[in-house]
Amino acid sequence: MGATIKKILITGGAGFIGSNLADALISVGHDVRIADNFSTGFHKFIDQHKGTAAIEIVETDLLDEQACSQVLGGCDVVYHLAANADVRFGWQQPLRDTQQNLLVTQNLLEACRKQGVRKFVFSSTGSVYGKAKQIPTPEDCAFPTQTSLYAASKLAAEGLINAYAEADVVDATIFRFVSILGRRYTHGHVFDFVKQLLGDPKRLKVLGDGKQTKSYLHVDDCTSALVRVLDGKSKLDIFNLGTNETVTVNQSINIICKSLNCDPIIDYSGGSEGWIGDNPHIFLDTTSARATGWSSVRTISESIRETVEWLVANDWVFSLRDK
Amino acid sequence: MGATIKKILITGGAGFIGSNLADALISVGHDVRIADNFSTGFHKFIDQHKGTAAIEIVETDLLDEQACSQVLGGCDVVYHLAANADVRFGWQQPLRDTQQNLLVTQNLLEACRKQGVRKFVFSSTGSVYGKAKQIPTPEDCAFPTQTSLYAASKLAAEGLINAYAEADVVDATIFRFVSILGRRYTHGHVFDFVKQLLGDPKRLKVLGDGKQTKSYLHVDDCTSALVRVLDGKSKLDIFNLGTNETVTVNQSINIICKSLNCDPIIDYSGGSEGWIGDNPHIFLDTTSARATGWSSVRTISESIRETVEWLVANDWVFSLRDK
Repeated sequence: MGATIKKILITGGAGFIGSNLADALISVGHDVRIADNFSTGFHKFIDQHKGTAAIEIVETDLLDEQACSQVLGGCDVVYHLAANADVRFGWQQPLRDTQQNLLVTQNLLEACRKQGVRKFVFSSTGSVYGKAKQIPTPEDCAFPTQTSLYAASKLAAEGLINAYAEADVVDATIFRFVSILGRRYTHGHVFDFVKQLLGDPKRLKVLGDGKQTKSYLHVDDCTSALVRVLDGKSKLDIFNLGTNETVTVNQSINIICKSLNCDPIIDYSGGSEGWIGDNPHIFLDTTSARATGWSSVRTISESIRETVEWLVANDWVFSLRDK
Repeated sequence: MGATIKKILITGGAGFIGSNLADALISVGHDVRIADNFSTGFHKFIDQHKGTAAIEIVETDLLDEQACSQVLGGCDVVYHLAANADVRFGWQQPLRDTQQNLLVTQNLLEACRKQGVRKFVFSSTGSVYGKAKQIPTPEDCAFPTQTSLYAASKLAAEGLINAYAEADVVDATIFRFVSILGRRYTHGHVFDFVKQLLGDPKRLKVLGDGKQTKSYLHVDDCTSALVRVLDGKSKLDIFNLGTNETVTVNQSINIICKSLNCDPIIDYSGGSEGWIGDNPHIFLDTTSARATGWSSVRTISESIRETVEWLVANDWVFSLRDK
């Protein structure tokens, strides 16, 4: 690699993307500190590194300003991935997204200022484009309307990061992801469908009409983009991340059923949106990210198949994450 | 008027725009409840209504969820104008904008849900466009970069209002204002310049190079737009508000000096931005608002002159608002 070894904080580092990012950074020689409250993260996802010098694991609540500042001490970079990511269930606890996604981000930005940590990488979401009028959607599309508390809180966090970058407190990179698939994937469409079908392979309940267009990216393609920006320096970069293809929910169901070798009767709830605030058509323009040399390797079909295989081999995640 | 009498909550109703809005709503027969923490509002601004049946004044902290819900009880409409509006001083207390502008807004939205108040009118800001690439800037311009904590918090609040409107909790109207001038104006460029010149008419310190383009609207033109949306029903409307002209800071200084009959030596701090996060060129495209029949009556020059006259006649505001 040739680059300097860095001390890197990953918030949400015991989660799906965070733990995969930890693997990737450790594999090229960096030292990783994981901060996680283990509300949706799993020790199982990081067990492979325990006892090695490359990892430190801190169980902490980043809503606590002091704890937040403390956990950042001595780091060169922060990858801020900790978040409440349950888009659908936002209305059950309307303040949760604001607290977990916005206030925690500001605590971390303030901690960066106090601890002199300059490099701030943030996982935002393609959901900030709401019901985008332009598809594929570029980063500088028309000022969007927010459709969920989750996306509103991520956009709010982006705005704060903008302001801190403009005030020269941090050098920031914001990634707007489509949904991510792959090993350790633990919530979303594919998770829900596989869970249902493992329970009863003859019936599948689907929110909406199955025609919503979804975009997925393999977690390895996601973390490869995250790792690439580690050494670069820029005031504020914003990149969409996704593949150059989409699938409908129905196509996704077909791939899942083929993998599981089942042929269920499908019960659609109807309507073009899966739930209040669902964005029925997500497809991001990833020209900017690809212009830096990054590219995605896996197709959506491959990603779905691999995810189904992982879920089948790790069905303990269904019992531990009952929603 | 012919319309039904409404019970209207104005948050920040003892402030500059809020108290003028209270005057306007009461003058056409509505009942107004003012909620203010009097941190920057003044009893003097609403004294004219005290003891009349048309007004109720509640001194309260809207950061307190329960107080927030209570003060909304029995209202048909809320005009949410309460905010921390000190753009320049955001970095002295970095969490203040988040608390006062975002968390308070969510408390109010939750209170609307609990109290069944459908109509939500919000005062946002042209600052959410950051350093806009398109001038005059339309509501659906390219996805902007935030440059101040103030604007980031207002954009965050807009995002939440979007999500609550999409979830059919409220019918929302969001106004993005330029700077407002007129009677009871108590902070901003003109305030700072008049304050300095009343202290020493021979010297004036100016942040930046004086060439920043600013846009101002008279408070009566602002409140006439706010009052117009009282009866309309729409899921989510967003309107820019401003005049069809701009002034440079230097032109504004000339008008002020002429009004005060002084000719100071001007001491520029230099640079194209007045301060970190200043948006040096603000000019909003107000086609959407004008398409509804609204128009602005006062020119910027008239507004500046009237503001200077009011400040001179009410110089007690300088001693009470020392920043």
